[in-house]
Amino acid sequence: MRIAVDAMGGDHAPEEIIKGTLIAAEKNPDVQLILVGQKERILPFFTGAKPKNISLYEATEVIAMDEHPANAVRKKKDSSIVVATRLVKLGEADAVVSAGSTGAQMASALLGLGRIKGIERPAIATVLPTPEGGKLILDVGANMDATPEQLSQYALMGNIYAEKILRIPNPRIGLLNVGSEEGKGNDLTQKAYGLLKGAPLNFIGNVEGRDVPYGRADVVVCEGFVGNILLKTAEGLAGVLFQQIKEKITSNMVRKLGALAVKPGLKEIAQMMDYAEYGGAPLLGVNGISIICHGSSNAKAILNAIRVAQECMKIQLIEQIREDLPK
Amino acid sequence: MRIAVDAMGGDHAPEEIIKGTLIAAEKNPDVQLILVGQKERILPFFTGAKPKNISLYEATEVIAMDEHPANAVRKKKDSSIVVATRLVKLGEADAVVSAGSTGAQMASALLGLGRIKGIERPAIATVLPTPEGGKLILDVGANMDATPEQLSQYALMGNIYAEKILRIPNPRIGLLNVGSEEGKGNDLTQKAYGLLKGAPLNFIGNVEGRDVPYGRADVVVCEGFVGNILLKTAEGLAGVLFQQIKEKITSNMVRKLGALAVKPGLKEIAQMMDYAEYGGAPLLGVNGISIICHGSSNAKAILNAIRVAQECMKIQLIEQIREDLPK
Repeated sequence: MRIAVDAMGGDHAPEEIIKGTLIAAEKNPDVQLILVGQKERILPFFTGAKPKNISLYEATEVIAMDEHPANAVRKKKDSSIVVATRLVKLGEADAVVSAGSTGAQMASALLGLGRIKGIERPAIATVLPTPEGGKLILDVGANMDATPEQLSQYALMGNIYAEKILRIPNPRIGLLNVGSEEGKGNDLTQKAYGLLKGAPLNFIGNVEGRDVPYGRADVVVCEGFVGNILLKTAEGLAGVLFQQIKEKITSNMVRKLGALAVKPGLKEIAQMMDYAEYGGAPLLGVNGISIICHGSSNAKAILNAIRVAQECMKIQLIEQIREDLPK
Repeated sequence: MRIAVDAMGGDHAPEEIIKGTLIAAEKNPDVQLILVGQKERILPFFTGAKPKNISLYEATEVIAMDEHPANAVRKKKDSSIVVATRLVKLGEADAVVSAGSTGAQMASALLGLGRIKGIERPAIATVLPTPEGGKLILDVGANMDATPEQLSQYALMGNIYAEKILRIPNPRIGLLNVGSEEGKGNDLTQKAYGLLKGAPLNFIGNVEGRDVPYGRADVVVCEGFVGNILLKTAEGLAGVLFQQIKEKITSNMVRKLGALAVKPGLKEIAQMMDYAEYGGAPLLGVNGISIICHGSSNAKAILNAIRVAQECMKIQLIEQIREDLPK
């Protein structure tokens, strides 16, 4: 197995990316890791001997977070994400992992790898931590205006991912909506409901926003705009609440002492909520494995994303999706 | 001032509704409160003398939460919400407050009171508690598929409400979107951005899901489907986190002792997050004051909703909206 890692993408690139790759290389001696990027910025992190299963691949350009994705991908043909994706296309790598611009990664995958036949638009699937384990939400931002047919394709792909990668038997598929009854919602969800009801899936009907953090569906299907808002709202609210807790439970001496005693409990919750545990989010529907990491990924997140990439290869994710699509 | 209170609407009706009305009556001797509903279910709560400023108004029917709103409103002409709204229409009350079916309240208002001229679709505006104070989100579910013009009308109405009722000077208006730069998002938000930029508002551009819980905009504008998902996701996540905290900080003896010390701090956060503090959500854009309460409203929420209704009358909300609309 050979995994191309975009060394230049992410808020903490290249340092955290390289650190994560180093740990992954040590843990998985049989996996070949290819760090793609500007050699002069990568090499300083290899003061000792470079592990045998890490190689460097030069890419002279970098796509910044605020560049227009499609334009940047077309213009910067020697950028790390474009080069890393090309390695997959050429069969020189089996997967790509990046924490850089999501839009650029998506554009690279679409232009470089293309779509799986039968999938109109790829989806970004992300794992939301809940007390019932990680649950899959898709799409969280690949496709802003989806059709009912596309939502139904997301459900199919999400079903495979939840079953094979998250290891949830017979995953419960829920349609994100504003009410639980059939007939609720906008034109898109009303039509998608009918399609999902008829699909060979464990479709449990509509799920509301409040159901999602409780983990009441294993796969939550929605269009990219809504999924993005849901995910970021959850992220923001968790951030605000932990910030408030930290402040309020240490605001006087008595509370500070109490805080010491309850801290391990709060840490358990923070760990449960830590997206880094689940590694990256796969871009589902393209002809190759492309794992999207959070922009703020640390070494642990990169390590886990590399693990996810390996698992996707092991279960032959792309072939599985092809097989499950209606003929 | 005369406020019609739907005694039959809500998960805890009629008991909590009547309790809240009783407290409001005592606090505001100059306000006339009209409890609308089935007398035989309301009267048992008045064992002593009924306060002078509470009157009962018979409505023999009740619309259940799961009934089709528009159909139920058309059929059940003697239901509490239809009758309460009619009192406003006839000038026998100045506002209506209900914790019943939101859809039925909206349909009653649309059919009974009509829209303000220049407002194509009304919006439900709700107050989201944040560490920076209550922020207004609209629409959270009145209108599933909005147009850019409608979003711009929401912004205008939200601006007035935030300034006059939430007392935020020169409210920062944000457009809910998937990225901060202009040009991000779906067709709706791209077009709405242009309209908002040209409007006489303190428009701060796009806000992302994660910005909302931090209170980075005073008024968050979005279409009803997305606003509903945002609001309920926040509700669900807060619920999950508090449940987890309760569990994890009391899972052994040491933590239990610590929990006693930090409990007042956690209570402060729970109070900050308590929607009941902000009372109900106004239905903005109809020709009359209609305050929508959370289905699970307790007496405190009803009391605060009655306060909100009073404030809307004091500032002459409907007239204000009419004046601010582009001529």
